[in-house]
Amino acid sequence: MPDSQPNDDRPRPGARRMYRHFQVLTTRWMDNDAYGHLNNVIYYSLFDTAVNAWLIEQGLLDPESSAQIGLVVESGCRFYAELGFPRPIEAGLRIARIGKSSVRYEIGLFSAGADQAAAEGFVVHVFVDRASRRPAPLTAEMRLRFAELTVPGADNV
Amino acid sequence: MPDSQPNDDRPRPGARRMYRHFQVLTTRWMDNDAYGHLNNVIYYSLFDTAVNAWLIEQGLLDPESSAQIGLVVESGCRFYAELGFPRPIEAGLRIARIGKSSVRYEIGLFSAGADQAAAEGFVVHVFVDRASRRPAPLTAEMRLRFAELTVPGADNV
Amino acid sequence: MPDSQPNDDRPRPGARRMYRHFQVLTTRWMDNDAYGHLNNVIYYSLFDTAVNAWLIEQGLLDPESSAQIGLVVESGCRFYAELGFPRPIEAGLRIARIGKSSVRYEIGLFSAGADQAAAEGFVVHVFVDRASRRPAPLTAEMRLRFAELTVPGADNV
Amino acid sequence: MPDSQPNDDRPRPGARRMYRHFQVLTTRWMDNDAYGHLNNVIYYSLFDTAVNAWLIEQGLLDPESSAQIGLVVESGCRFYAELGFPRPIEAGLRIARIGKSSVRYEIGLFSAGADQAAAEGFVVHVFVDRASRRPAPLTAEMRLRFAELTVPGADNV
Repeated sequence: MPDSQPNDDRPRPGARRMYRHFQVLTTRWMDNDAYGHLNNVIYYSLFDTAVNAWLIEQGLLDPESSAQIGLVVESGCRFYAELGFPRPIEAGLRIARIGKSSVRYEIGLFSAGADQAAAEGFVVHVFVDRASRRPAPLTAEMRLRFAELTVPGADNV
Repeated sequence: MPDSQPNDDRPRPGARRMYRHFQVLTTRWMDNDAYGHLNNVIYYSLFDTAVNAWLIEQGLLDPESSAQIGLVVESGCRFYAELGFPRPIEAGLRIARIGKSSVRYEIGLFSAGADQAAAEGFVVHVFVDRASRRPAPLTAEMRLRFAELTVPGADNV
Repeated sequence: MPDSQPNDDRPRPGARRMYRHFQVLTTRWMDNDAYGHLNNVIYYSLFDTAVNAWLIEQGLLDPESSAQIGLVVESGCRFYAELGFPRPIEAGLRIARIGKSSVRYEIGLFSAGADQAAAEGFVVHVFVDRASRRPAPLTAEMRLRFAELTVPGADNV
Repeated sequence: MPDSQPNDDRPRPGARRMYRHFQVLTTRWMDNDAYGHLNNVIYYSLFDTAVNAWLIEQGLLDPESSAQIGLVVESGCRFYAELGFPRPIEAGLRIARIGKSSVRYEIGLFSAGADQAAAEGFVVHVFVDRASRRPAPLTAEMRLRFAELTVPGADNV
């Protein structure tokens, strides 16, 4: 978005150093909407992907069999610049808040090589028992892994 | 989500009367994810659909030719209850804030017949000139139509 | 597509009377791609939706618990005319072939009120045991319901 | 799919050597459907992506400005084995038929490192004039590039 003034109080895109874990995600032809850029909905699909891929990679989630699964109870995004197929996207991930049974992930989406995020958002997972779907406390292993992804001084998006 | 206590300060789902304009949206097989319910990303697709369908119906937007188009600069959602294919969804729409070139829509998604929203979210559009993609003031016609969709007393989601 | 000649041997769109069961499906903003019309991939999502909604409605499938589930082993589509958001689509369904453990559905997608299909396609389901994922014979109930959706004289698409 | 017999006449998955150009495509959480595997519709999104990414890379298509654009008039797929998030997919591409204004692409989707395709499909593009949307002959440059992607002896899928 144009026209930013020096004393502007609008939110500003975060930098790459504010994120801990990066994944390269490819875009798809149909991600671009009638305006020729990545549709806003796709950003959330990339958030969901970045979060769950990291959980699976860390051994914290097996979508088919783990006792606890993470359900999204809140999410949000601020859009700063256009992204679009065919360019790939780098998704940066950090953890912003670790609750009793919940965790807040923050995600920055970057054009390849860019230092400033094109979009920043968050996803809050409540971990629930797979069968009852009632909140279940985070395990010690989860807390440990989540703590490794926190970033001191990160402004929550 | 379970376990709500009487004095709980968690956000609560809004009622149907807090929304002005309703559309029935069908769900799709692939909307359901590995957990067997509507994936969180799909909610945003329904928001986007409810907003743009209303704009088009009101004559405020022609995706191919209107001088101004609405670009999403921020959005968010709180998820209260599961939705899922094959059940259709009712999307309620209201307008919460009318700026110089921007507008905040709030959307509630309801199971057919339910009084309480299963999810509530918002989308902020900045209207821009189609070619330059720079913010352009809302037209008088837009302001008039947007005003008709405001709901006194609506708690902003 | 333009330029069809009288003696042309290209496939031609089928008529509404060649389908048995109709469902109205809503379209979404993000269904339209960079060319401003319904992306070709979405047609398959509507096929999948029409087929599974009918199976569920007939009591032949419960996605979470039925002993047999239908897996897609082949599909295809011919595209005759553009469709696009915000217009809803009518999906016509018929059954073209009933095998030992498989069934071929044929689907026509129609603009509201149109007599000629905008697209026609097929989906072949092999019904498998949910746990082993090995082919399992169609039940008598399935055969009965499938037979009701056949259309004598339908040209297979 | 199980139970293949030696003399079986069912179609068999092709090998990697039958494809010319390979791209690695990442999968997404929401690609997996209620059965926990990549939904059949997503395969077509990967086809569309592999084809258009190659066209753009070769300089044969600029989605926003090139005089000719490729519209899908037919497509199809055979599904041999499950794919699923979080595993990436390799898409192999070849050209099977070059017409006056049309081209048939064939695509194989492979699990990372696998020699046999998990799915094989095709997409037929008719190239049309962007404005009139009427068929326009392939350019000499297109014919040259398409010819480089043909594979002698490839069984058309």
